[in-house]
Amino acid sequence: MDNLNIPTLEDLLETKNRISAYTTRTPVHTSRKLNEVSKGELFFKCENFQRTGAFKFRGACNAIFQLGIEEIAKGVVTHSSGNHAQALALAAQYRKIPAYIVMPKTSAKAKIDAANSYGGITIFCKPTLEAREELMKYVKTRTGAVEVHPYNDYRVIAGQATAAMELIEDHSDLDIILVPVGGGGLASGTALAAHYFSPNTKVILVEPAMSNDAKQSFYKGNIVKAPAVHKTIADGLLTSLGDKTFDIIRKHAYSVVTVSEANILAAMKLLFERMKLVVEPSAAVSLGAILGKKINVQGKKVGVILSGGNISYDKLPLKLR
Amino acid sequence: MDNLNIPTLEDLLETKNRISAYTTRTPVHTSRKLNEVSKGELFFKCENFQRTGAFKFRGACNAIFQLGIEEIAKGVVTHSSGNHAQALALAAQYRKIPAYIVMPKTSAKAKIDAANSYGGITIFCKPTLEAREELMKYVKTRTGAVEVHPYNDYRVIAGQATAAMELIEDHSDLDIILVPVGGGGLASGTALAAHYFSPNTKVILVEPAMSNDAKQSFYKGNIVKAPAVHKTIADGLLTSLGDKTFDIIRKHAYSVVTVSEANILAAMKLLFERMKLVVEPSAAVSLGAILGKKINVQGKKVGVILSGGNISYDKLPLKLR
Repeated sequence: MDNLNIPTLEDLLETKNRISAYTTRTPVHTSRKLNEVSKGELFFKCENFQRTGAFKFRGACNAIFQLGIEEIAKGVVTHSSGNHAQALALAAQYRKIPAYIVMPKTSAKAKIDAANSYGGITIFCKPTLEAREELMKYVKTRTGAVEVHPYNDYRVIAGQATAAMELIEDHSDLDIILVPVGGGGLASGTALAAHYFSPNTKVILVEPAMSNDAKQSFYKGNIVKAPAVHKTIADGLLTSLGDKTFDIIRKHAYSVVTVSEANILAAMKLLFERMKLVVEPSAAVSLGAILGKKINVQGKKVGVILSGGNISYDKLPLKLR
Repeated sequence: MDNLNIPTLEDLLETKNRISAYTTRTPVHTSRKLNEVSKGELFFKCENFQRTGAFKFRGACNAIFQLGIEEIAKGVVTHSSGNHAQALALAAQYRKIPAYIVMPKTSAKAKIDAANSYGGITIFCKPTLEAREELMKYVKTRTGAVEVHPYNDYRVIAGQATAAMELIEDHSDLDIILVPVGGGGLASGTALAAHYFSPNTKVILVEPAMSNDAKQSFYKGNIVKAPAVHKTIADGLLTSLGDKTFDIIRKHAYSVVTVSEANILAAMKLLFERMKLVVEPSAAVSLGAILGKKINVQGKKVGVILSGGNISYDKLPLKLR
């Protein structure tokens, strides 16, 4: 596969084969209590148990293993500081190539430690987007490293699709799959997986009402940028869609709904207390949308992708900001 | 089986058959990071994913289903207010008999709600042990309900043994199994399971240093009561051993070690951040003992029973009291 065309059904199958030796086939958990509350039948795909704690490892792995070793021998680089950075660092470690992670010098120690712990080479810059992009350009020139975009890359999208592929294999007759949307890597991958492997399943994207650019983009038909000032606790979903992710989402997603901060927090609490699962706020938006009655799941079989669990023990949000 | 003799190997096999339709066969999770930290190979038996959020459901289920329906038709009663109460209520619901739960009127709302949500009939008394026992006696007389002790009962012990039986089936060559000890139901059940089904596995019990009565009892050879004033965060492990649990532990456990509060908290944090698992403090003591170098697991295969995950989201202990 290349990075010029939307991944085909065959591309997704090859991707799944390519990365399955490195990724965890995450379990699907259920909860009688949450079925009772929602009146639906919910199947939670636990990507919080994925390597590096989030689905991002699937995409990073596919990008790195799909590239020829001669293309990539000098390493990979990104200026993400979150889950993608950790994912890329670990995937590069498996491929035995360097991963350069450009981070703002103001990054949380936990994020720096995480990138380092997976063998990433962290490089620090001023905390502006310009400084990050400039330093990344410099690193590319100096080292010959290849940039791996966190979401707007068909190889990354194909990797993220494998989470829904596994879920569909385990539960073939889902009416709906709910998936968080930020930059759209997981959302477009999920929509593509359902399109090829379970065409009757509606893929519904969920984002915080405080950062509703994906909803606006979906219904207006062109990419609306995410607002510059963000206050949502779901800080993993602040990114704007890219042209590649938007194109797939427009074609294959069923709808986009938004969720309130209170419902995100209530969902985190239920996942914690009833299912004993640690998820990050961004991963709790789908259940939040059900709780807020933004999606009617009564009598339906519903896949819910819990996208990740990277949250500091000391930073668990106890109330809204 | 009766309640007069230590359960035999056949009793444990029958117990496992009897309750398996109701209990969850909980998964065993692993963590590369925690293997690296401990230098051992750790297998975490996730009883936090058990029905009602803790191993207690196994024992309650066995006690209730092992009794003849004529013996038990008028219901069961306990004066526990914690995990055993919830477990007994749900097991009674399956058997279609009433479960009377005597609770101090000062109980946390979460505990009362939990017992009610599983169909328990909650009855309140003054917050003293005398008042609880007196009211329980009254309920027994009035209703004809049968008392099910939370741990000092061979049927309960046999039920708790099934967690280790499953773990041993999944990983047959464990050098050690670590298990928390409070009243000793899970600890004695685990020791018995290893004795019958994996005799080369050493069962090591772990308790908070602040409540070290099991260690004293084990090494003195008679039951030493738990101290009356408790400050440990592992509040599920405050109970004294009973004669039945002590007898089995003395015969079949290998040793008892204690763990500091700081190590319990550090273990909770690692389980949360690295394994994305919500466990209650009492369930974190075993990993805490490894972190505190109370047990050397280097090069060893070690089963770790994570006994439960019932903790309020808002009550996650962030620092020591």
